[in-house]
Amino acid sequence: MYILYYSPGTASMAVHLALLEIGAPHELRRIDIDAGEQKQADYLRLNPNGTVPTLVVDGAPYYECLALLMLLAERHPEAALAPAPGAPQRATWLQWMAHFANTLQPAFRQWFYPQDFARTEHEQDSKAFARRRIEAVWQRLDAHLSAGGPYLLGESFGVADLYATMLMRWSRNMPKPATAWPAVAALADRVRARPSWRRLYEIEGLTEWV
Amino acid sequence: MYILYYSPGTASMAVHLALLEIGAPHELRRIDIDAGEQKQADYLRLNPNGTVPTLVVDGAPYYECLALLMLLAERHPEAALAPAPGAPQRATWLQWMAHFANTLQPAFRQWFYPQDFARTEHEQDSKAFARRRIEAVWQRLDAHLSAGGPYLLGESFGVADLYATMLMRWSRNMPKPATAWPAVAALADRVRARPSWRRLYEIEGLTEWV
Ligand SMILES: N[C@@H](CCC(=O)N[C@@H](CS)C(=O)NCC(=O)O)C(=O)O
Ligand SMILES: N[C@@H](CCC(=O)N[C@@H](CS)C(=O)NCC(=O)O)C(=O)O
Repeated sequence: MYILYYSPGTASMAVHLALLEIGAPHELRRIDIDAGEQKQADYLRLNPNGTVPTLVVDGAPYYECLALLMLLAERHPEAALAPAPGAPQRATWLQWMAHFANTLQPAFRQWFYPQDFARTEHEQDSKAFARRRIEAVWQRLDAHLSAGGPYLLGESFGVADLYATMLMRWSRNMPKPATAWPAVAALADRVRARPSWRRLYEIEGLTEWV
Repeated sequence: MYILYYSPGTASMAVHLALLEIGAPHELRRIDIDAGEQKQADYLRLNPNGTVPTLVVDGAPYYECLALLMLLAERHPEAALAPAPGAPQRATWLQWMAHFANTLQPAFRQWFYPQDFARTEHEQDSKAFARRRIEAVWQRLDAHLSAGGPYLLGESFGVADLYATMLMRWSRNMPKPATAWPAVAALADRVRARPSWRRLYEIEGLTEWV
């Protein structure tokens, strides 16, 4: 039994999708980010960073979207959401998961939370720098998928695709969204056609970028 | 046989340390970052991001420090540098590895490469924001180590400690370096006392922060 602390459409989304794909029993606890619930003492005891997601596993809370995706994939090998250690595509999988976490997701943080990166009067400028780094990743991802798609690991779907598509969704209102890159858009279409995606939209009450 | 493309003291350092800890045969190829070798066509074919490290594994190149550390740990279980999937501390290990990659290392990128984050005239400002986020991680890491150190996973040393200590080293000339936090400094001392650390200093020709 898992407990997921989430907020609709945020970094908790990929973890929620993974739980739905696995079919793992879980309880959801909604955190109202606009009301600042993620910075309240009760929540900070679970996750001192004051962000979502937090996943409670066997009674203990863990954070970091990347870590939770990796953990769920390896706790549920029957769902085949990641290559096992030693499998041929393992290194490629680790590389892309790390790339999303280290290079793409932090650039989105600069885009959506400019106040953590620059003074108010420089925020628009700061976002332009974030945009440049984000678009560079779509470019490289498009090259990778064009050469060996349609999924991150070729023919087999998994948590890397969920992570990628969540991040793509975050770009939907940007000047050049991820879907401007054809192979990236094709991946998004596949992931959005999955029952887990539709179910998540219902549960989280999402409407945009169906 | 591994081939590591590295530059002294950079993000390749933790990977180099892991190779030394494992005792895995490897070849080193030095990339001169100041001369821009990481942006030359030959290197970009190995790593389209134009950064170090790149590790060639079974003839194929992979990037992302985090991914390479995870990969080396799982390819060499006899070195016991990470808990195996299913082991009790696995989730904690994944969390901290992901936290370093997603939250700490990108803040250092803003500190060391302000030109990727802000206009020249705002760079000093921008670095102040990076500093705030870096120090917040030392604070949380110190709390974690005080409660259950001396290593990231208590009594057992591993790649998480190498990753943490490489990042600590990057803070050595900052206004408040990582070693200002006592439990963090104690971890650094342990890692710096290891033969792998001294050997790396010789090979990479490092002098500061011995
Ligand atoms: N490193 C964290 C970052 C998560 C994150 O940035 N979450 C955002 C939503 S997408 C959040 O909680 N924002 C509220 C806040 O920062 O106060 C992870 O990957 O899980
Ligand atoms: N996401 C990469 C980032 C590596 C990185 O930032 N490397 C720096 C040295 S610490 C680099 O190659 N800098 C040269 C450049 O960006 O041109 C990783 O974690 O491996």
